[in-house]
Amino acid sequence: MKKISLLGATGSIGRQTLDVIRQHHEEFSLAAFSAGRNIEETRKIIKDFQPELVSVELREDAVKLKAEFPSVKMMHGEEGLVETAVFQAADILVNAVLGSVGLHPTLQAIEAGKKIAIANKETLVTAGHLVMAAAKKHGVELLPVDSEHSAIFQCLQGEKEKNIDRLVLTASGGSFRDRTRAELKNVTVQEALNHPNWSMGAKITIDSATMMNKGLEVIEAHWLFHLPYDQIDVILHRESIIHSMVEFQDSSVIAQLGTPDMRVPIQYALTYPDRLSLPDAKRLNLLEVGKLHFQPVDQERFRMLALAYEAGKSGGTLPTVLNAANEAAVAAFLDGKITFLQIDELVERALEKHQSSPEPDLETIQQTDKETREFVRSLL
Amino acid sequence: MKKISLLGATGSIGRQTLDVIRQHHEEFSLAAFSAGRNIEETRKIIKDFQPELVSVELREDAVKLKAEFPSVKMMHGEEGLVETAVFQAADILVNAVLGSVGLHPTLQAIEAGKKIAIANKETLVTAGHLVMAAAKKHGVELLPVDSEHSAIFQCLQGEKEKNIDRLVLTASGGSFRDRTRAELKNVTVQEALNHPNWSMGAKITIDSATMMNKGLEVIEAHWLFHLPYDQIDVILHRESIIHSMVEFQDSSVIAQLGTPDMRVPIQYALTYPDRLSLPDAKRLNLLEVGKLHFQPVDQERFRMLALAYEAGKSGGTLPTVLNAANEAAVAAFLDGKITFLQIDELVERALEKHQSSPEPDLETIQQTDKETREFVRSLL
Repeated sequence: MKKISLLGATGSIGRQTLDVIRQHHEEFSLAAFSAGRNIEETRKIIKDFQPELVSVELREDAVKLKAEFPSVKMMHGEEGLVETAVFQAADILVNAVLGSVGLHPTLQAIEAGKKIAIANKETLVTAGHLVMAAAKKHGVELLPVDSEHSAIFQCLQGEKEKNIDRLVLTASGGSFRDRTRAELKNVTVQEALNHPNWSMGAKITIDSATMMNKGLEVIEAHWLFHLPYDQIDVILHRESIIHSMVEFQDSSVIAQLGTPDMRVPIQYALTYPDRLSLPDAKRLNLLEVGKLHFQPVDQERFRMLALAYEAGKSGGTLPTVLNAANEAAVAAFLDGKITFLQIDELVERALEKHQSSPEPDLETIQQTDKETREFVRSLL
Repeated sequence: MKKISLLGATGSIGRQTLDVIRQHHEEFSLAAFSAGRNIEETRKIIKDFQPELVSVELREDAVKLKAEFPSVKMMHGEEGLVETAVFQAADILVNAVLGSVGLHPTLQAIEAGKKIAIANKETLVTAGHLVMAAAKKHGVELLPVDSEHSAIFQCLQGEKEKNIDRLVLTASGGSFRDRTRAELKNVTVQEALNHPNWSMGAKITIDSATMMNKGLEVIEAHWLFHLPYDQIDVILHRESIIHSMVEFQDSSVIAQLGTPDMRVPIQYALTYPDRLSLPDAKRLNLLEVGKLHFQPVDQERFRMLALAYEAGKSGGTLPTVLNAANEAAVAAFLDGKITFLQIDELVERALEKHQSSPEPDLETIQQTDKETREFVRSLL
């Protein structure tokens, strides 16, 4: 029986993680989890999974839940998040929180020697060098949960890193795949949230539409697989059937495919290096799909991808700025405060204005993150 | 330095094996090889690679070559083939002979404890149960060279057999992919030899056109990967870019892709579990390819595939009959003695006439092989 602690239980990845645990209750149990302000759902998860520790965002919610579930250890806020991350009884942490807020608990979990299934890509984008150095120092395994990185990780089983020539991340193109840049001017939040292939949270769906999601993934892949940016390519593949590929030095390419279903990479991270069945997953039927399409990504049209490559290659605090500006801009877009194309503009302005610091420490990163969000808000 | 013995050096796979050795002369050397009656090419290979042992088909050719290369051990016929297969100084045998004639040397090599890269699929079709039992008994590794089986083998690295749900072999459809059965009536040998994707020997190119090649591969896959026939599917994929796939029980699919180039699977078998560069291989460019197509295989149109599944499932001596009848019929077609559609008919008649023996021993298989060829010839 593997005991799991889960950060972000009420988000999209969190819910699907719970579904995987539910389907394999002889294999997995939920030892601890964190949630935000959705108390009704939190209550339901406690009843269903009977964890030992629960953390919510607000103190008042923690007090209320403690009264209802006196045998459960109830915490709240940043401290509760960290306690969930390092929860001693857990064999593996699934980090499914959104945004760079996941950085601190990730680093704490690494120091506590926890194996981590990481869905929280912003953590690796904002401070990849710190996270990877800490993981190496403490001998901690980081198991990717993002479908693209899980794909690459699966393709690399039994292979040697030295033999990798190139990673190819596939991009669906998001909600506005077939529109020109000019046609993006007046798109609505509702249209942007309508992803053609994947059912995901709001932030990542917007990131897909701007292609920033792929940019963040390129930076994530750089850190997870120890490869320079010129060995990481992105290709537009509208069906999202091939989730990513690895090209080896003998020209052989290994790819991972499947019907888009985030439970597959989540479960793989939990069962790795083994696999378990996932009976209600829709099997890939290539006869039904018929055709797979591949196109180049237009980096003029999808400006965010170019910005991400630049920020990644330059390094220093630029990836932190890229990510923080994007988080702030996407939040503003979802709040109806800016238009879709202004997301790109705000990120670009934040990057232009910033003086990068090389090899930033945690404090510098946190300060940069904070200042960037303030700068973006000041432009609204 | 890995020393290689090579059966069938002047065939298509043999020549490409030599090309791989030539490109990696610090890694590989040719210790021994067999060839048929192409003495000019045999002479050239001896000069280029300076092997210790060479075997040709005819005694007179062996005598002639011995006079020219007195330091090389020169043999001929069946005995020479076996001596090449078991050559003591070789680390690995590449069995690239054509047809069930490869069976005896393969079994001898297994008994001698040789690691075998096997391109000779007919051996596994005709006597898979004997070959696999002998390999298990002597702890010998059989490394697939066929592009489909190499693909599956690559996809299975780091995975467990128990987690496999299904193998999906891809089929290009061969030279007559887009023709109806009625349109096959008057096709010529020349047309049949014009494969759209792969450059291969004559026999396998005809087998591709009849789809018998895929049938033989299904039986080969059954033996190599220890899976029942209902877990081995065939899908028509006209571009031959995905070389085959494995579906696991969690619904994840791993595929191996590449530009069609037999040197890639040959080299993989030689470098396994490592890889080496193959600088002049054409890299896969999915942007150039643009689309990948998938269609069901029509088993009415490609009757040979249905026959192969039936023979494989029934077992006994039926796969031996399937293969021997096909070898004889394809030879007759290449000689201009029968039409293209008569290949299917002859194989079907041989299977219908045969009384299968369960669990046949080597002698029974050899006798069945001989009788089947005689039966097919009697119908010409």
